[in-house]
Amino acid sequence: MSHQIIDFRSDNVTGIIPEILQAIIRENDRYGDTSYGYDQTTIALERQLRDFFDYPVQIFPIISGTAANALTLASITPPYGAIFCHEHAHIHVHECGAAEFFTGGAKLILLQGQQGKLAPDLLDQKIRTLGKGERHSVQPAAISLTQATEWGAVYQPDHVTEICKVAKKHDMLVHMDGARFANALLALRCHPGDITWRAGVDVLCLGATKAGAMAAEVVVFFNPKPVENFGYRWQRSGHVLSKMRFLSCQLQAFWRKGVWDQHALQANRLAKNLADGISQIPSVQLVAEPDINEVFMRLPKHMITQLQSQGVLFYDWPFPDPDHQENLPLIRLVTSFATTQEMVDRFLGLLKNI
Amino acid sequence: MSHQIIDFRSDNVTGIIPEILQAIIRENDRYGDTSYGYDQTTIALERQLRDFFDYPVQIFPIISGTAANALTLASITPPYGAIFCHEHAHIHVHECGAAEFFTGGAKLILLQGQQGKLAPDLLDQKIRTLGKGERHSVQPAAISLTQATEWGAVYQPDHVTEICKVAKKHDMLVHMDGARFANALLALRCHPGDITWRAGVDVLCLGATKAGAMAAEVVVFFNPKPVENFGYRWQRSGHVLSKMRFLSCQLQAFWRKGVWDQHALQANRLAKNLADGISQIPSVQLVAEPDINEVFMRLPKHMITQLQSQGVLFYDWPFPDPDHQENLPLIRLVTSFATTQEMVDRFLGLLKNI
Amino acid sequence: MSHQIIDFRSDNVTGIIPEILQAIIRENDRYGDTSYGYDQTTIALERQLRDFFDYPVQIFPIISGTAANALTLASITPPYGAIFCHEHAHIHVHECGAAEFFTGGAKLILLQGQQGKLAPDLLDQKIRTLGKGERHSVQPAAISLTQATEWGAVYQPDHVTEICKVAKKHDMLVHMDGARFANALLALRCHPGDITWRAGVDVLCLGATKAGAMAAEVVVFFNPKPVENFGYRWQRSGHVLSKMRFLSCQLQAFWRKGVWDQHALQANRLAKNLADGISQIPSVQLVAEPDINEVFMRLPKHMITQLQSQGVLFYDWPFPDPDHQENLPLIRLVTSFATTQEMVDRFLGLLKNI
Amino acid sequence: MSHQIIDFRSDNVTGIIPEILQAIIRENDRYGDTSYGYDQTTIALERQLRDFFDYPVQIFPIISGTAANALTLASITPPYGAIFCHEHAHIHVHECGAAEFFTGGAKLILLQGQQGKLAPDLLDQKIRTLGKGERHSVQPAAISLTQATEWGAVYQPDHVTEICKVAKKHDMLVHMDGARFANALLALRCHPGDITWRAGVDVLCLGATKAGAMAAEVVVFFNPKPVENFGYRWQRSGHVLSKMRFLSCQLQAFWRKGVWDQHALQANRLAKNLADGISQIPSVQLVAEPDINEVFMRLPKHMITQLQSQGVLFYDWPFPDPDHQENLPLIRLVTSFATTQEMVDRFLGLLKNI
Repeated sequence: MSHQIIDFRSDNVTGIIPEILQAIIRENDRYGDTSYGYDQTTIALERQLRDFFDYPVQIFPIISGTAANALTLASITPPYGAIFCHEHAHIHVHECGAAEFFTGGAKLILLQGQQGKLAPDLLDQKIRTLGKGERHSVQPAAISLTQATEWGAVYQPDHVTEICKVAKKHDMLVHMDGARFANALLALRCHPGDITWRAGVDVLCLGATKAGAMAAEVVVFFNPKPVENFGYRWQRSGHVLSKMRFLSCQLQAFWRKGVWDQHALQANRLAKNLADGISQIPSVQLVAEPDINEVFMRLPKHMITQLQSQGVLFYDWPFPDPDHQENLPLIRLVTSFATTQEMVDRFLGLLKNI
Repeated sequence: MSHQIIDFRSDNVTGIIPEILQAIIRENDRYGDTSYGYDQTTIALERQLRDFFDYPVQIFPIISGTAANALTLASITPPYGAIFCHEHAHIHVHECGAAEFFTGGAKLILLQGQQGKLAPDLLDQKIRTLGKGERHSVQPAAISLTQATEWGAVYQPDHVTEICKVAKKHDMLVHMDGARFANALLALRCHPGDITWRAGVDVLCLGATKAGAMAAEVVVFFNPKPVENFGYRWQRSGHVLSKMRFLSCQLQAFWRKGVWDQHALQANRLAKNLADGISQIPSVQLVAEPDINEVFMRLPKHMITQLQSQGVLFYDWPFPDPDHQENLPLIRLVTSFATTQEMVDRFLGLLKNI
Repeated sequence: MSHQIIDFRSDNVTGIIPEILQAIIRENDRYGDTSYGYDQTTIALERQLRDFFDYPVQIFPIISGTAANALTLASITPPYGAIFCHEHAHIHVHECGAAEFFTGGAKLILLQGQQGKLAPDLLDQKIRTLGKGERHSVQPAAISLTQATEWGAVYQPDHVTEICKVAKKHDMLVHMDGARFANALLALRCHPGDITWRAGVDVLCLGATKAGAMAAEVVVFFNPKPVENFGYRWQRSGHVLSKMRFLSCQLQAFWRKGVWDQHALQANRLAKNLADGISQIPSVQLVAEPDINEVFMRLPKHMITQLQSQGVLFYDWPFPDPDHQENLPLIRLVTSFATTQEMVDRFLGLLKNI
Repeated sequence: MSHQIIDFRSDNVTGIIPEILQAIIRENDRYGDTSYGYDQTTIALERQLRDFFDYPVQIFPIISGTAANALTLASITPPYGAIFCHEHAHIHVHECGAAEFFTGGAKLILLQGQQGKLAPDLLDQKIRTLGKGERHSVQPAAISLTQATEWGAVYQPDHVTEICKVAKKHDMLVHMDGARFANALLALRCHPGDITWRAGVDVLCLGATKAGAMAAEVVVFFNPKPVENFGYRWQRSGHVLSKMRFLSCQLQAFWRKGVWDQHALQANRLAKNLADGISQIPSVQLVAEPDINEVFMRLPKHMITQLQSQGVLFYDWPFPDPDHQENLPLIRLVTSFATTQEMVDRFLGLLKNI
């Protein structure tokens, strides 16, 4: 890449990490294998993820987070169901109605909450007002939470457990959108089971694309009940690759010690460095200490314009300022495995000089 | 691969051709690019396919044929529409109801026809009986044909033109499933425009996966009208890769002179050789001369069992024998870019010795 | 009505029988009652139908057969399911894709069979070819049969039992479209349980509109399992009347001894008389002895034109002649509670004189 | 009815007004007519409503408001569309996800607003933030407003016009839920065109059931464009009555001068009297002066219990108090054509004596 680019738009503008590219090349050395996910690589991946989670999970590799989320929600929600999620959840804001489409018209019930997190009390209260068993209302079916959240914050294991307790109490299932699960897991320094099955999560959409895969997510079922219907939905949505092994091998390569954690470390650490630098520049404001690889900052509009005119790439943040400081716009900066300290330093330098 | 494997199951059990693997590796040399299909590689691919078809096409890369077909049909058929297709069409038999799902409940109207081909007269007659404008009936919306067909036969340009004329007469649109378009095009030795836009096809699902890509198909719109609604459907179905350029680069590498044609040539030629060999073995029967890389044969059940016991891989063919010879079962043999003459020879040798 | 009208189009062009009109008037004498089906009349109707069927049925009144059929099928078929039915079934031909819409894209698998009847053997064979558990295929979920059939023929209790056995064997459920159930039941002279729950039917769409109600059908569940999901589907489809009691009172009035049977007798008897007359006119042909209130006949095209020019109302029959007599077109004549012997006589007179 | 009943639950617990019952009886004097809405009564109803609105409307009679709303929204919103409505809108809260189901998964975007009304400015702002043309987001398609609102308030003609201007600016269509349109129209004392087509409304769901019909609403299209697709949706949803004339005759009888207005007058006037009485009782609070036949009041919980123990029927109001007075719960009282002054007086008497 050109040394001029400073790109904090998203961790999905990046390429492929070397370990995954090598895995694809190696996978291609085999003549062939059974298609549609019945291959040896996919079978081995399931074993690997059972070890990783220390649980007899059932898995479905898939090429996008939108597909993973929406298919999963469809498998645990009837068409007349309600899915409770944060008002800024990716499934509500950025997936063009995928959840509504795949479920056959379920409804997302939106909740407010700090840093993109659901508050168990508010959740419980909202579910109770919906009218369980009352035919005029969609029926509470699922809770969806994002780990880490859209505001780059992580849920502690206890927090996940509290949310899952609310779900069980109302006979609902829990979906976790884990597009940045690797970054969250590294930040939490806990066992992956602690924020999933041990806490009561039924199904996790485990991401790798943003963390360095070409296009590889995997639906991980802890609860075996929805698995059967999921398989047919997966097929009829066109999401079963005929050469599935090239998807599975990416996930195999990524979810190894020394791979997922090292690349996530790079992303998280540089976000921390970025935040530290920002907090020392008086004209801009850090919104919160970053848990993972996303940094949110406030800055005057003219500074945004100047950064952009110098080729710095980033996105405006469309949601309201959590501290109600409406005078300064918000932007989001995302680091990744491909971000360098030099990139961070040049960005901070530009920021100081404006 | 082991020299022992004789695998004629499907061209989708294979790996990736070198040109495409190289393209993925090269694409990864760039730091990054805009996500979700707004990248330079995808833009270049559109230009390349405009040259290939000699037409201002609009394109949408996608990872599977099922997705390509179903999304395309949804973009040209109202939920109360009827899609006319062959009774053995992949969209009816092998896509787990994807067309019905994506369209919101449209109906496939099934037609008989030799070698998987639609007969314009019968088509016209069936459409007329459906009751256009009659509210009790689903409404004629689209015709779907497969080039080459599920029986491995190609439509001549005139035949496609005749079908499209029927469509236009009834104000319907034409979808072409081109999962094995490269093999068909090579067999026909015509310009790709001759069997698509010049004949009146509105949209083509152009396959590359079976021909040697990792997972790469592309929806090619000749008719610009459904394009807008297609884009949103593509997104909400989870089929827009964030790192789309790794899909587009595969298609770029494949649809070049010397690549698609050479690999298709290998597959078609070995099917021809296979068929020639079969026709000289008295105990088995060739169903038809192959147009492309699929060979259909009749053979006694005990021979099937013996071939299988020797590790030869192939699929039974589930459809009735076109010549009504119910005494012998049918099997399908598929060759690919990865098939070798040696594999063909060993298969024929085994067959003779049973 | 004018004495000039001879109307054999359908039993749904008629009005309301006096018993039902009186029931509506009487129902209106009560000030009010709980809305949306929780009223006393609907509760009483359920009791009445439990007596009628001698079974603890659960019921849902509804205003049309299309709604009854499609909602019921949706409650027993997953979106990726297959519903097996006759190729001339009303749910396939005349409901504008309602079954596909309500199920979320299930597929109807069409079967041939004499007089609109399903043959258990063929059914079993078709189900077996579908690939149960095979992800590429929609999954066998339901069998739908029509009592009496679209060709006006009745299924004997044994025949229904055979079909239900096939269903159970494949873990499928059975739906019965009973738009003309009263006519069938009268013709069969059996207990209503003999052709429903005793035979293995899971759910019946029991019609009254064609038999003399204003707009009143009722979904009768023998199998309690789909009931819960049905309730929500019923509501969200807009099919729960707020003043449900005015629908339920119609059904109450109709399904009494001396009402349903007397009106069905009138319709069936006049169809018999019509058929007898037709069979004595040499230039026309009766297709089959009528079981219920539908008569199918062949006659020369010029006779059709002359009957129409004299104001006689009837419909062409769109399906192929069962006896392959392509030289003469088919028409259908439907009698009803409102048909008179005089109408039949005048029609036969006109027919003789052409 | 018993003199003991005081029933303010809803105007849909009532029966049928005499004019409509007579119309049904009269309609039944005709032998029969073409089914499925092609009858003379339905044709005459369309003429009548063209006169009523002074506009060449196209109409579709239907049996419920949920069906009318959801089918209409489906006809003007793509599956990936967004429908903007009040957070308390009936289509969101009380229709079990009908809008999501019929549209194929569109999304309702909820807005706050006083008395159930949409504020044009807020509406405009919300629409702008949705990302028109941005593939990740559902696309602004329709605005839905309720006349009168769920809080019993009416929109003035100017207010409707302002909302429609916002819609046109964003290339969206406007749906009006007119479940209590008669009450609103009477309150506004304007021409029906002033709050519909002259203001820019595209389609109105015009209710009569709550106002005294048995089950009769009618979709009134001012904008002819969605009409074609609506017809097929109407049919495949099972909402086309075969004996449609019995639905149309109810609407014919109701929408006559001296009928709709006199019955609405009774309901509105008694609500006014009820509100006047309430405002003179110190221990309870009127929430707002009623525009139509709905009265909202605050009262201590023990009074609610006592009223209920004396057999008074009414519903709790599930939405937050507009004046943030959380100490007293809200209840809703609905009057109708069947309410009497005596019922109002007895209620006020009970209230005073608690």
